[in-house]
Amino acid sequence: MEIAIVGASGIVGEELLRLFAKRDYDLSQFLLLASSEKTLSLDDYHLTVYPLQEDSFAGIDVVFFCTDAQTAKKYIPYARKEKALVIDMSSAFRLHSHVPLIIPEINCNLIDGKKLISSPNCVVSILLTALYPLHKNASIQRITAATYQAASGGGKTMLERLENQNAQETTPYQYNLFPHESPLLESNYAEEEIKIIQEARKILGNDLEVAVTAVRVPVIRAHSIAAFVEFEHPMQAKEAIGLLQEAKGICYTEDPASLHPHFASFKEEIFCGRVKDDLFQKNRVAFWIVGDQLLKGAALNALQIYDFVTNQQTNKNPVYS
Amino acid sequence: MEIAIVGASGIVGEELLRLFAKRDYDLSQFLLLASSEKTLSLDDYHLTVYPLQEDSFAGIDVVFFCTDAQTAKKYIPYARKEKALVIDMSSAFRLHSHVPLIIPEINCNLIDGKKLISSPNCVVSILLTALYPLHKNASIQRITAATYQAASGGGKTMLERLENQNAQETTPYQYNLFPHESPLLESNYAEEEIKIIQEARKILGNDLEVAVTAVRVPVIRAHSIAAFVEFEHPMQAKEAIGLLQEAKGICYTEDPASLHPHFASFKEEIFCGRVKDDLFQKNRVAFWIVGDQLLKGAALNALQIYDFVTNQQTNKNPVYS
Repeated sequence: MEIAIVGASGIVGEELLRLFAKRDYDLSQFLLLASSEKTLSLDDYHLTVYPLQEDSFAGIDVVFFCTDAQTAKKYIPYARKEKALVIDMSSAFRLHSHVPLIIPEINCNLIDGKKLISSPNCVVSILLTALYPLHKNASIQRITAATYQAASGGGKTMLERLENQNAQETTPYQYNLFPHESPLLESNYAEEEIKIIQEARKILGNDLEVAVTAVRVPVIRAHSIAAFVEFEHPMQAKEAIGLLQEAKGICYTEDPASLHPHFASFKEEIFCGRVKDDLFQKNRVAFWIVGDQLLKGAALNALQIYDFVTNQQTNKNPVYS
Repeated sequence: MEIAIVGASGIVGEELLRLFAKRDYDLSQFLLLASSEKTLSLDDYHLTVYPLQEDSFAGIDVVFFCTDAQTAKKYIPYARKEKALVIDMSSAFRLHSHVPLIIPEINCNLIDGKKLISSPNCVVSILLTALYPLHKNASIQRITAATYQAASGGGKTMLERLENQNAQETTPYQYNLFPHESPLLESNYAEEEIKIIQEARKILGNDLEVAVTAVRVPVIRAHSIAAFVEFEHPMQAKEAIGLLQEAKGICYTEDPASLHPHFASFKEEIFCGRVKDDLFQKNRVAFWIVGDQLLKGAALNALQIYDFVTNQQTNKNPVYS
């Protein structure tokens, strides 16, 4: 299996390489691509990253796109021409009706031999992984969510902004937070919020209502979400906790020491707690959800898709070591 | 008018003194009290803080309590014995049926000669100041809120925890955040969340439903709130914006440079923006609200109560310079 990673020197690309290394893949066998040639030091590896070109994909079986949407839109057609399986982490094709948008714990069945597969927005992957066991049981009607999004979601630029404070900035990042920086639409929604709403509905179905406020917080690499959920069928905190405890890839806990982004960083599980019955309405439960933005929010979800496709005769989810 | 401030050397007490100084009061005329004798340097003043005792209040007309609830419960009866007006910022008597819980923009009429007045929890003051103009117009049925609470709300201990990072902590504070640290009840609600719900209902009425998740973020002194509001009567973002623009003490803006806690710090107004129509339900609007925790969240609200009582023949709100 010949594997290429486009955007290999970005933070998601590096994270994907680390996940492959952890699973004993030989990274020197990978074709690494980025906007320009460079070398990449990663653990014991010294890897060469080649410049991405239209003819980069000859002989490649699987291509991961860890790039912005523009790069993905331009180069994915060349990868498809070579009949490669493409796993795209950008937003380029997520809402296209013929492209499955996959969270392996939820909807692997939709892959069905397709050769272009999108991995969702990081908030969507983390949020829906936690909520799907509940949706399966009691059908979620509405999610109201406020996010606490880490710097890593804004790429290296945002991480540098967090680390190298400039006192002259009108919106400093250290000791501060701000509504999501993606373009503000005329409706006063941030583009990020619309992505979250549309992608969540593509995955859980168009009966789902979503309200969301997306906020960037001075945290390095794990997202947190305060989610208030309305169910169609009876659901209470006690039952929700039982379902979360049984679910794969989720760690339910009420230990405060495990319910913050510092703890969730570098971990593959989603952490969920503060599961509370609404004090006024039945069938409403609140959740506090934390997950690593670069892992389940991006690279891990993509790797799980790869795992599913390459092992799908067994129909098992082999991730979560 | 003889004024005493209990807890004068705490962060809220100091903030109240600064507000009085800004309004040209002579701070050397104040009786300052705290758990032990100390000196307090504040701008050009060098003030003596005396130890709080049962007989501290002889001859005093107005006492501000900027203390924890336990101290307020113990010493307020001695202040009342001297017929002083007591303005209490602690939670000690907020829910007592005979004690008015006052946000001057909302319910000054309830003071009605009473001599013990409570000032609400900081989240409640900031949240309801922003939402009251909308409630008055279209009756709020339900508020769903996620908070982004600054360190100052946890007093000097929490501020020091933010500044002096200890790498060994299981829950570091820098580059991290966590569900509110107040005692966790069996229902998985934090005590802080129950306070917010109960106090908001005392102020806006028991028909109001409130769902809240309270979170401590690494920010110094301004709280932010993502609020999702359901109205009984028709209300849309466009109308809500008009009402916010007319309201006193609120700055409506969609300028990202003015919608973050760094900008709102040391300012008396509440900043409100990201006013968004729900995409699925009518009569639901989302808001992003930011306000200084020590000002409108505490000391300024108490000072406005004082202003109202001492000028109440004019029935004007003289604050917001």
